[in-house]
Amino acid sequence: MAPKSDAMDECVEAVRWAGDAVEYLDQRLLPHEELVRRARTVDEIESAIISLSVRGAPCIGVFGAYGVALLRATMPDDDAFAQAASRIRNARPTAVNLMWAVDRVLASPDMLAEAHAIHAEQRHMDERIAAVGAELIPVAARILTHCNTGPIATAAGGTALGVIIAAARAGKRPHVFVDETRPLLQGARLTYYELTQADVAATLIVDGAAAIAMQRQGIDLAIVGADRICRNGDTANKVGTYALAIAAAHHGIPFYVAAPRSTFDLSLENGDRIPIEERPADEVTAIAGTRIAPEGARAYNPAFDVTPGHLITAFITEYGILRPPYVESVPDLELRPNLAAIR
Amino acid sequence: MAPKSDAMDECVEAVRWAGDAVEYLDQRLLPHEELVRRARTVDEIESAIISLSVRGAPCIGVFGAYGVALLRATMPDDDAFAQAASRIRNARPTAVNLMWAVDRVLASPDMLAEAHAIHAEQRHMDERIAAVGAELIPVAARILTHCNTGPIATAAGGTALGVIIAAARAGKRPHVFVDETRPLLQGARLTYYELTQADVAATLIVDGAAAIAMQRQGIDLAIVGADRICRNGDTANKVGTYALAIAAAHHGIPFYVAAPRSTFDLSLENGDRIPIEERPADEVTAIAGTRIAPEGARAYNPAFDVTPGHLITAFITEYGILRPPYVESVPDLELRPNLAAIR
Repeated sequence: MAPKSDAMDECVEAVRWAGDAVEYLDQRLLPHEELVRRARTVDEIESAIISLSVRGAPCIGVFGAYGVALLRATMPDDDAFAQAASRIRNARPTAVNLMWAVDRVLASPDMLAEAHAIHAEQRHMDERIAAVGAELIPVAARILTHCNTGPIATAAGGTALGVIIAAARAGKRPHVFVDETRPLLQGARLTYYELTQADVAATLIVDGAAAIAMQRQGIDLAIVGADRICRNGDTANKVGTYALAIAAAHHGIPFYVAAPRSTFDLSLENGDRIPIEERPADEVTAIAGTRIAPEGARAYNPAFDVTPGHLITAFITEYGILRPPYVESVPDLELRPNLAAIR
Repeated sequence: MAPKSDAMDECVEAVRWAGDAVEYLDQRLLPHEELVRRARTVDEIESAIISLSVRGAPCIGVFGAYGVALLRATMPDDDAFAQAASRIRNARPTAVNLMWAVDRVLASPDMLAEAHAIHAEQRHMDERIAAVGAELIPVAARILTHCNTGPIATAAGGTALGVIIAAARAGKRPHVFVDETRPLLQGARLTYYELTQADVAATLIVDGAAAIAMQRQGIDLAIVGADRICRNGDTANKVGTYALAIAAAHHGIPFYVAAPRSTFDLSLENGDRIPIEERPADEVTAIAGTRIAPEGARAYNPAFDVTPGHLITAFITEYGILRPPYVESVPDLELRPNLAAIR
């Protein structure tokens, strides 16, 4: 395997190729338990994604890539394999990484080598993003973040959280306000855990407290990851991101999105046509198995929202900082060489 | 007793005088169980308040008023009664309605009549607010609300939720998107329950989904209650309200605050000096007894935030609609007669 980054040294790996299985950290059990599971069948691979045991768009991409490579090795029947690969590819609709990674593996003569290459590229990209983004972080910055974008989200160094951790390693002493990120509490469960692992000062808040934190706690900037970014900068990310971006603009606070080129969907002019995955009501009506709303309560539970590009100060990518106007800076990514190829 | 409003007919009453006891709905058990308890002794009355079985500032005031009147009838010893009344008055030192109501009852020659008067005034204020506010609600409006402002919060008709319920009774068929309202989930537990009781269509959302609901679910307006309102319209309310007001302004959606005159603090020019109560971290790090963040996690847990008056479209009061500029319309409340006196 590729060498682990510093951040990874202190965390259990999110995804690992194990020869006869894809091993993954069951992220649903964090922060209470660090349990590594093994997926070997299409059912196991698909359900690990659907259940969010494996989550984080890049992490899902790496996991799906290894999963399809594993299935190719274990399913001699071409039609059955094609159906299985299609199930993995479509296990979650919003994140572009999964489809992209599966398609790339399917197009390769050596699927396993391609999956390893995707994973290695992810590590390399994350390191670049962290290095590029850390330059933007002032000393002693008070930073707001949402959801989870750390090493366990990318199966590598992380995106937004990778930037923060890199700034901390550069001696900048950031203090991170972590949105708990309802409904699935990735901030409380995962981001707080990863920041603690990386020895970065952190304070947990409910999502509704982000605006008062900006108003009364001296927040200097917000930084988040992304699930899909369009040519005009419109960005799909975990539900709650849009509200954060609106509040940041209201307070004149920079709002950064850290994401690799693979998250940019250059086929989409804007965010109007990004499908928003709606997830089961019980994620909202119950928490950790405890029902909080009346029996039969109806819920609207979009997993993502779309933040308009005009609310985003800059994108932090492995190719550097992209600034507005995004209709010019984002499509330029098409002209960039594959980082993996020039490494 | 004063005649019940329509809204009350379909709800279990939050507080009720029962001759030899004060009956109350145990709000801790909602929405799973509707249990009416009877308080007869000072211990029972005090612990109902301390345990939050009775909550909502106006509701606590009505409950405390009846409680003191009951104790006067059952405690012949003046010193013992004075001590008991003092315990009730101080059961929650931050709830200003409780002290106000107990003092008013103690100063009256007929304590029970005074307690009934306080309750009747609350009903009358809430009915006026509901009638005034319902005029603002369009037919088939899709409405966003936050926290709990319904009948069980006021032991009468409710404020913001009273407006919505009145609009429904007028045949306007509102559909309410209910913020769950972390950390204590008053929206999920209480508001959704009250809307169901009142047969109003409701959809539960996490607080972070309010902005995408405005963007993609056709929200027509937002309406909330208030804990304290300053002369310039700056409004303290449950944490999360400020983010909602910013998002509403961003989307050009009217943002209304429904509150009685008693919530306006005309001694404060603006919200800068409103103290923000910070509550224990474990309200954030655990939900319904289940720990969600790592052991020892630090949290910032303000109970309220302050929404600047310029983000508020109008205030709905028992004296009618107050519109900007609030530095002119709000101080006019000082000139208004006591509604109870002119009834």
